[in-house]
Amino acid sequence: MKLNIALLAGDGIGPEVIDQAVKVVNAVAVKFNHEVNWTSALTGAAAIDAVGEPYPDETHEVCMAADAVLFGAIGHPRFDNDPKATVRPEQGLLKMRKKLGLYANVRPTFTFPSLIDNSPLKRERIEGTDLIILRELTGGIYFGERGRKDDGNTAFDTCTYTREEIQRLAKLGFELAMTRGKKLCCVDKANVLESSRLWRETVQDMEKDFPEVEVSYEFVDAVAMRLVQWPKSYDVIITENLFGDILTDEASVISGSMGLMPSASVGIHTSLYEPIHGSYPQAAGKDIANPLATVLSAAMMFEDAFGLKEEAELIRTVVNKSLTEGIVTEDLAGKDNKAYKTSEVGDWLAKNI
Amino acid sequence: MKLNIALLAGDGIGPEVIDQAVKVVNAVAVKFNHEVNWTSALTGAAAIDAVGEPYPDETHEVCMAADAVLFGAIGHPRFDNDPKATVRPEQGLLKMRKKLGLYANVRPTFTFPSLIDNSPLKRERIEGTDLIILRELTGGIYFGERGRKDDGNTAFDTCTYTREEIQRLAKLGFELAMTRGKKLCCVDKANVLESSRLWRETVQDMEKDFPEVEVSYEFVDAVAMRLVQWPKSYDVIITENLFGDILTDEASVISGSMGLMPSASVGIHTSLYEPIHGSYPQAAGKDIANPLATVLSAAMMFEDAFGLKEEAELIRTVVNKSLTEGIVTEDLAGKDNKAYKTSEVGDWLAKNI
Ligand SMILES: CC(C)[C@H](C(=O)O)[C@@H](O)C(=O)O
Ligand SMILES: CC(C)[C@H](C(=O)O)[C@@H](O)C(=O)O
Repeated sequence: MKLNIALLAGDGIGPEVIDQAVKVVNAVAVKFNHEVNWTSALTGAAAIDAVGEPYPDETHEVCMAADAVLFGAIGHPRFDNDPKATVRPEQGLLKMRKKLGLYANVRPTFTFPSLIDNSPLKRERIEGTDLIILRELTGGIYFGERGRKDDGNTAFDTCTYTREEIQRLAKLGFELAMTRGKKLCCVDKANVLESSRLWRETVQDMEKDFPEVEVSYEFVDAVAMRLVQWPKSYDVIITENLFGDILTDEASVISGSMGLMPSASVGIHTSLYEPIHGSYPQAAGKDIANPLATVLSAAMMFEDAFGLKEEAELIRTVVNKSLTEGIVTEDLAGKDNKAYKTSEVGDWLAKNI
Repeated sequence: MKLNIALLAGDGIGPEVIDQAVKVVNAVAVKFNHEVNWTSALTGAAAIDAVGEPYPDETHEVCMAADAVLFGAIGHPRFDNDPKATVRPEQGLLKMRKKLGLYANVRPTFTFPSLIDNSPLKRERIEGTDLIILRELTGGIYFGERGRKDDGNTAFDTCTYTREEIQRLAKLGFELAMTRGKKLCCVDKANVLESSRLWRETVQDMEKDFPEVEVSYEFVDAVAMRLVQWPKSYDVIITENLFGDILTDEASVISGSMGLMPSASVGIHTSLYEPIHGSYPQAAGKDIANPLATVLSAAMMFEDAFGLKEEAELIRTVVNKSLTEGIVTEDLAGKDNKAYKTSEVGDWLAKNI
């Protein structure tokens, strides 16, 4: 099969972890006789430095022409503490999501048996956790009107949702639930927000089309509690953009290994695969970042974008092997064990494919 | 001293837990020679049923005339799954906060030595946690313009903040930090939201007035992670209304005993003390709810509203004693121990004052 993949390495540790995923994907391609066409393009602070724009048109064209996008991370601290910066890496991310129509961020949360004791949560609370959060990614307060009034002394942001946006995301959630535990939890703040009431109303209307799915409705504050108290009680969670941003990151703590958590963003024009961790600028260039989340994102890409399940499974098996054999970066090595470099882990994985 | 206290029991378990706090406050008053004037008033679903309004004018007058308000909980499930209900208990809560000018919700998070193993988090992560979240309570998306367009198919909510609202809350945060660990963390989403950028800008401008306070700025998604990973790294957190709603509830998991966590809301016209748990309708009327969060809220009231520190300390000492002696409700009793009734715990506390 011919696999056309756009490669957006981004900022910070992005390029390093992406390099390892490329090695692994190439090894898989050789083994299964696929032909990979990689096309690299700029995003984030790297793109701002090069062309003054965090998501340049050329990058968009590269993504549109590809069958899937493999993404590293973007963001740079020099923009974070400057509330007056007018061009920011994150704008590129949001523009990319919007222009590619990436309306659903799919974030699985699961535990790795060999790493379960890394979690700040107790083993008995998390062992066997298997939940997926579907975060709406192109609507809500991220994309509503915003600005200043009163000489800059008043600021506002608007959260807007249409029934169609909600239906599109919820449909994916219902369908996903049907392939799994058949439980769907809609997370909102319907006791306060009008947009949340539209979410609840819309999902309620869809229940009849999926009679086998058990649907619950919970407030975001309650879920922020229950997610760490009883993660095993969830199967599929659907929620709006900002709540999803907060809850997916919170959920990543469960596994105890943020450096291992992959994600997919499902879109109208293409789909995108990325680790959930950020650009981690403190570690950039040091060859110490954990590449496994990006490698596992590539596995999601094989399975979801190309329908190549066997290839995906092989990647996961080799990743598990690296964990049990201790071929891991310093974040996972522990005090008494050898820590491997980012590039060494990538080489080892590629060789073991 | 003469203590004029407005008593808003509210819905669900509210009346039961409030009853116990009243017993304890009365016992303290006898012991220290204070005169308590209680004035009860209706709120929430109870008020809707009685007068069609969740925060009636008479209730507001009772609160305005009091030196402090002791509050139970409001909310009733019959409103939650009806997105079209036009009168809701929560509206009463929001109206009350706005009309009383309760602009800061103060939520301490700490652990109880005897209960630390109840937490879903590991002991070494949480032991010694002592943080306070200051949540802005009368602004943001809770109070902005909201509504529907396109025949009800589009819904919107607006988040608005003024520099003054932020300054008022942040000032409290800086001052509180000065009495404690001198660390302040401002939580926002300044990489996306304009209102968050105003928060960051405003707090940055105030740093020079509190040169001893070490200030950090973190994104809400990162804090949703770090709060459960490294709660001991925080001292005072300040944040806007919706983020505060989510993070304070998340933080309540740390202690492992939601039923024990008190809160205060500091205001322009008065201050209000309430347990952080909700109305817990499933338990209402069963005499099983844990009254300690409400009792500890009364302790906060003695200290903060009346400046009566010794009285507050006595309440806390007696609560600790009830915990170590196992005079606790079923949520804390564990499988093998006797569970006491709500009213029995209240009686025991009052007797031991
Ligand atoms: C960088 C930021 C704009 C982004 C978001 O909030 O969506 C990030 O936190 C994420 O979750 O991908
Ligand atoms: C009931 C609800 C409106 C309220 C809020 O969101 O403020 C509650 O969750 C709280 O935190 O007191």
